[in-house]
Amino acid sequence: MSDARETGTTLDPKYDAAGLVTAVATDAATGALLMVAHMNAEALEATLTTGEAHFWSRSRARLWKKGETSGHILRVIEMRVDCDQDAIWLRVDPAGPACHTGAATCFYRRIEDGRLVRAE
Amino acid sequence: MSDARETGTTLDPKYDAAGLVTAVATDAATGALLMVAHMNAEALEATLTTGEAHFWSRSRARLWKKGETSGHILRVIEMRVDCDQDAIWLRVDPAGPACHTGAATCFYRRIEDGRLVRAE
Repeated sequence: MSDARETGTTLDPKYDAAGLVTAVATDAATGALLMVAHMNAEALEATLTTGEAHFWSRSRARLWKKGETSGHILRVIEMRVDCDQDAIWLRVDPAGPACHTGAATCFYRRIEDGRLVRAE
Repeated sequence: MSDARETGTTLDPKYDAAGLVTAVATDAATGALLMVAHMNAEALEATLTTGEAHFWSRSRARLWKKGETSGHILRVIEMRVDCDQDAIWLRVDPAGPACHTGAATCFYRRIEDGRLVRAE
Protein backbone atom coordinates (compact mmCIF):
# COMPACT_ATOMS: atom_id res chain seq x y z
CA MET A 1 0.00 0.00 0.00
CA SER A 2 1.56 3.30 -0.99
CA ASP A 3 1.76 6.05 1.60
CA ALA A 4 0.87 8.63 -1.04
CA ARG A 5 -2.36 6.81 -1.66
CA GLU A 6 -3.17 6.77 2.05
CA THR A 7 -2.07 10.21 3.08
CA GLY A 8 -2.07 12.27 -0.09
CA THR A 9 -4.51 14.65 -1.67
CA THR A 10 -4.54 12.98 -5.09
CA LEU A 11 -7.56 10.93 -6.06
CA ASP A 12 -5.91 7.73 -7.31
CA PRO A 13 -8.43 4.88 -7.10
CA LYS A 14 -6.97 1.41 -6.74
CA TYR A 15 -9.03 -0.42 -9.33
CA ASP A 16 -9.09 -4.21 -9.13
CA ALA A 17 -8.22 -6.58 -11.98
CA ALA A 18 -11.64 -5.89 -13.51
CA GLY A 19 -11.08 -2.13 -13.32
CA LEU A 20 -13.53 -1.63 -10.46
CA VAL A 21 -13.75 -0.15 -6.99
CA THR A 22 -16.50 -0.83 -4.47
CA ALA A 23 -19.08 1.95 -4.13
CA VAL A 24 -21.22 2.24 -1.00
CA ALA A 25 -24.23 4.56 -0.88
CA THR A 26 -25.72 5.70 2.41
CA ASP A 27 -28.65 8.00 3.00
CA ALA A 28 -27.16 11.36 3.99
CA ALA A 29 -30.19 12.13 6.14
CA THR A 30 -30.63 8.85 8.01
CA GLY A 31 -27.25 7.12 7.73
CA ALA A 32 -28.95 3.97 6.41
CA LEU A 33 -26.90 1.83 4.05
CA LEU A 34 -28.81 1.91 0.78
CA MET A 35 -26.78 -0.19 -1.64
CA VAL A 36 -23.37 -1.57 -2.51
CA ALA A 37 -22.28 -1.49 -6.14
CA HIS A 38 -19.18 -0.99 -8.27
CA MET A 39 -17.64 1.84 -10.23
CA ASN A 40 -15.10 1.88 -13.01
CA ALA A 41 -13.25 5.05 -13.95
CA GLU A 42 -16.05 6.09 -16.30
CA ALA A 43 -18.74 5.68 -13.62
CA LEU A 44 -16.67 7.62 -11.11
CA GLU A 45 -16.11 10.43 -13.61
CA ALA A 46 -19.81 10.55 -14.55
CA THR A 47 -20.76 10.71 -10.87
CA LEU A 48 -18.31 13.50 -10.13
CA THR A 49 -19.41 15.45 -13.20
CA THR A 50 -23.17 15.14 -12.82
CA GLY A 51 -23.58 14.85 -9.05
CA GLU A 52 -25.77 11.80 -9.59
CA ALA A 53 -24.63 8.27 -8.80
CA HIS A 54 -23.45 6.18 -11.73
CA PHE A 55 -22.19 2.63 -11.41
CA TRP A 56 -20.75 -0.10 -13.56
CA SER A 57 -23.18 -2.97 -13.96
CA ARG A 58 -21.19 -6.17 -13.88
CA SER A 59 -24.15 -8.26 -15.02
CA ARG A 60 -25.00 -5.98 -17.95
CA ALA A 61 -21.39 -4.90 -18.57
CA ARG A 62 -22.31 -1.27 -19.06
CA LEU A 63 -22.36 2.12 -17.39
CA TRP A 64 -25.53 2.53 -15.41
CA LYS A 65 -27.03 5.68 -13.99
CA LYS A 66 -28.90 4.69 -10.88
CA GLY A 67 -32.56 5.58 -11.48
CA GLU A 68 -32.22 5.88 -15.25
CA THR A 69 -35.35 3.73 -15.61
CA SER A 70 -37.10 4.08 -12.25
CA GLY A 71 -36.37 7.75 -11.74
CA HIS A 72 -35.00 6.89 -8.32
CA ILE A 73 -31.73 8.71 -8.75
CA LEU A 74 -29.24 9.20 -5.95
CA ARG A 75 -28.16 12.82 -5.68
CA VAL A 76 -24.68 12.98 -4.24
CA ILE A 77 -24.24 15.13 -1.14
CA GLU A 78 -20.66 14.09 -0.39
CA MET A 79 -18.14 11.59 -1.68
CA ARG A 80 -15.28 10.09 0.27
CA VAL A 81 -12.55 7.58 -0.45
CA ASP A 82 -11.06 5.06 1.97
CA CYS A 83 -7.46 4.71 3.12
CA ASP A 84 -6.25 2.50 0.29
CA GLN A 85 -8.61 4.06 -2.27
CA ASP A 86 -10.33 0.85 -3.31
CA ALA A 87 -13.73 1.94 -2.00
CA ILE A 88 -15.88 5.05 -2.47
CA TRP A 89 -18.50 6.27 -0.03
CA LEU A 90 -21.40 8.25 -1.47
CA ARG A 91 -23.63 10.11 0.97
CA VAL A 92 -26.76 10.66 -1.06
CA ASP A 93 -30.25 12.08 -1.18
CA PRO A 94 -32.34 9.29 -2.74
CA ALA A 95 -35.27 10.29 -4.99
CA GLY A 96 -37.09 7.06 -4.15
CA PRO A 97 -36.58 3.49 -3.01
CA ALA A 98 -32.96 2.48 -3.65
CA CYS A 99 -33.68 -1.21 -4.20
CA HIS A 100 -35.09 -2.67 -7.40
CA THR A 101 -37.48 -4.66 -5.18
CA GLY A 102 -39.14 -1.41 -4.11
CA ALA A 103 -37.59 -1.43 -0.64
CA ALA A 104 -36.07 1.80 0.62
CA THR A 105 -32.74 0.02 1.00
CA CYS A 106 -31.33 -3.16 -0.51
CA PHE A 107 -30.58 -4.23 3.07
CA TYR A 108 -34.18 -4.94 4.04
CA ARG A 109 -33.49 -8.18 5.94
CA ARG A 110 -31.79 -8.65 9.29
CA ILE A 111 -29.84 -11.80 10.09
CA GLU A 112 -31.29 -13.28 13.28
CA ASP A 113 -30.29 -16.69 14.60
CA GLY A 114 -29.04 -17.66 11.15
CA ARG A 115 -32.34 -16.73 9.45
CA LEU A 116 -33.45 -13.62 7.60
CA VAL A 117 -36.13 -11.40 9.09
CA ARG A 118 -37.73 -8.52 7.25
CA ALA A 119 -36.37 -5.36 8.88
CA GLU A 120 -38.58 -2.77 7.21
CA MET B 1 -30.93 -13.77 -9.56
CA SER B 2 -33.11 -16.26 -7.72
CA ASP B 3 -36.33 -15.03 -6.14
CA ALA B 4 -35.72 -17.24 -3.11
CA ARG B 5 -32.49 -15.43 -2.47
CA GLU B 6 -34.25 -12.06 -2.70
CA THR B 7 -37.44 -12.74 -0.86
CA GLY B 8 -36.72 -15.74 1.32
CA THR B 9 -35.75 -16.19 4.95
CA THR B 10 -32.74 -18.42 4.27
CA LEU B 11 -29.28 -16.94 4.66
CA ASP B 12 -27.65 -18.04 1.40
CA PRO B 13 -24.74 -15.72 0.65
CA LYS B 14 -23.79 -15.37 -3.00
CA TYR B 15 -20.03 -15.75 -2.73
CA ASP B 16 -17.96 -14.62 -5.69
CA ALA B 17 -15.39 -16.72 -7.53
CA ALA B 18 -12.94 -16.14 -4.67
CA GLY B 19 -15.50 -17.26 -2.09
CA LEU B 20 -16.12 -13.75 -0.78
CA VAL B 21 -18.93 -11.30 -0.13
CA THR B 22 -18.49 -7.58 0.52
CA ALA B 23 -18.84 -6.56 4.17
CA VAL B 24 -19.67 -2.97 5.10
CA ALA B 25 -19.37 -1.75 8.69
CA THR B 26 -21.15 1.38 9.87
CA ASP B 27 -21.15 2.92 13.32
CA ALA B 28 -24.52 2.00 14.88
CA ALA B 29 -24.52 5.22 16.90
CA THR B 30 -23.53 7.77 14.25
CA GLY B 31 -24.27 6.06 10.93
CA ALA B 32 -20.73 6.78 9.73
CA LEU B 33 -19.26 4.32 7.28
CA LEU B 34 -16.25 2.85 9.06
CA MET B 35 -14.76 0.34 6.65
CA VAL B 36 -15.37 -1.96 3.70
CA ALA B 37 -13.87 -5.44 3.77
CA HIS B 38 -14.63 -8.98 2.70
CA MET B 39 -15.95 -12.13 4.33
CA ASN B 40 -15.72 -15.74 3.36
CA ALA B 41 -18.01 -18.34 4.90
CA GLU B 42 -15.63 -18.84 7.82
CA ALA B 43 -15.49 -15.11 8.62
CA LEU B 44 -19.26 -14.83 8.44
CA GLU B 45 -19.70 -17.81 10.75
CA ALA B 46 -17.12 -16.47 13.23
CA THR B 47 -18.87 -13.09 13.24
CA LEU B 48 -22.28 -14.63 13.82
CA THR B 49 -20.95 -16.89 16.56
CA THR B 50 -18.88 -14.37 18.50
CA GLY B 51 -20.74 -11.11 17.84
CA GLU B 52 -17.44 -9.52 16.86
CA ALA B 53 -16.54 -8.65 13.28
CA HIS B 54 -14.25 -11.09 11.47
CA PHE B 55 -13.13 -10.64 7.89
CA TRP B 56 -11.09 -12.46 5.29
CA SER B 57 -7.84 -10.66 4.60
CA ARG B 58 -7.17 -10.90 0.89
CA SER B 59 -3.62 -9.56 1.24
CA ARG B 60 -2.69 -11.95 4.04
CA ALA B 61 -4.98 -14.77 2.86
CA ARG B 62 -6.26 -15.56 6.31
CA LEU B 63 -9.16 -15.09 8.70
CA TRP B 64 -8.79 -11.83 10.54
CA LYS B 65 -10.60 -10.68 13.64
CA LYS B 66 -10.83 -6.91 13.42
CA GLY B 67 -8.91 -5.54 16.42
CA GLU B 68 -7.03 -8.75 17.13
CA THR B 69 -3.83 -6.70 17.40
CA SER B 70 -5.05 -3.16 18.10
CA GLY B 71 -7.86 -4.11 20.46
CA HIS B 72 -10.19 -2.01 18.31
CA ILE B 73 -12.81 -4.67 17.86
CA LEU B 74 -16.17 -4.04 16.23
CA ARG B 75 -19.01 -5.36 18.38
CA VAL B 76 -21.92 -6.26 16.16
CA ILE B 77 -25.24 -4.64 17.00
CA GLU B 78 -27.10 -5.82 13.92
CA MET B 79 -26.33 -7.65 10.70
CA ARG B 80 -28.24 -7.36 7.46
CA VAL B 81 -27.92 -8.85 4.00
CA ASP B 82 -28.77 -7.17 0.71
CA CYS B 83 -31.28 -8.23 -1.93
CA ASP B 84 -29.01 -10.58 -3.87
CA GLN B 85 -27.05 -11.62 -0.78
CA ASP B 86 -23.62 -10.65 -2.05
CA ALA B 87 -23.11 -7.96 0.58
CA ILE B 88 -23.39 -7.89 4.37
CA TRP B 89 -24.08 -4.79 6.45
CA LEU B 90 -22.72 -4.77 9.99
CA ARG B 91 -23.99 -2.06 12.33
CA VAL B 92 -21.33 -2.01 15.01
CA ASP B 93 -20.09 -0.46 18.23
CA PRO B 94 -16.38 0.22 17.60
CA ALA B 95 -13.96 -0.12 20.53
CA GLY B 96 -11.60 2.41 18.94
CA PRO B 97 -10.53 3.90 15.63
CA ALA B 98 -11.62 1.62 12.81
CA CYS B 99 -8.78 2.52 10.45
CA HIS B 100 -5.24 1.19 10.74
CA THR B 101 -4.08 4.80 10.20
CA GLY B 102 -5.63 5.76 13.54
CA ALA B 103 -8.56 7.59 11.97
CA ALA B 104 -12.03 6.89 13.35
CA THR B 105 -13.10 5.74 9.90
CA CYS B 106 -11.18 4.55 6.85
CA PHE B 107 -13.13 7.20 4.92
CA TYR B 108 -11.29 10.20 6.34
CA ARG B 109 -10.96 12.10 3.04
CA ARG B 110 -13.65 13.86 1.06
CA ILE B 111 -13.45 14.18 -2.71
CA GLU B 112 -13.69 17.87 -3.59
CA ASP B 113 -13.08 19.21 -7.09
CA GLY B 114 -11.17 16.04 -7.95
CA ARG B 115 -8.82 16.37 -4.96
CA LEU B 116 -8.87 14.76 -1.52
CA VAL B 117 -9.51 16.88 1.54
CA ARG B 118 -9.17 15.64 5.10
CA ALA B 119 -12.70 15.33 6.45
CA GLU B 120 -11.93 14.59 10.10
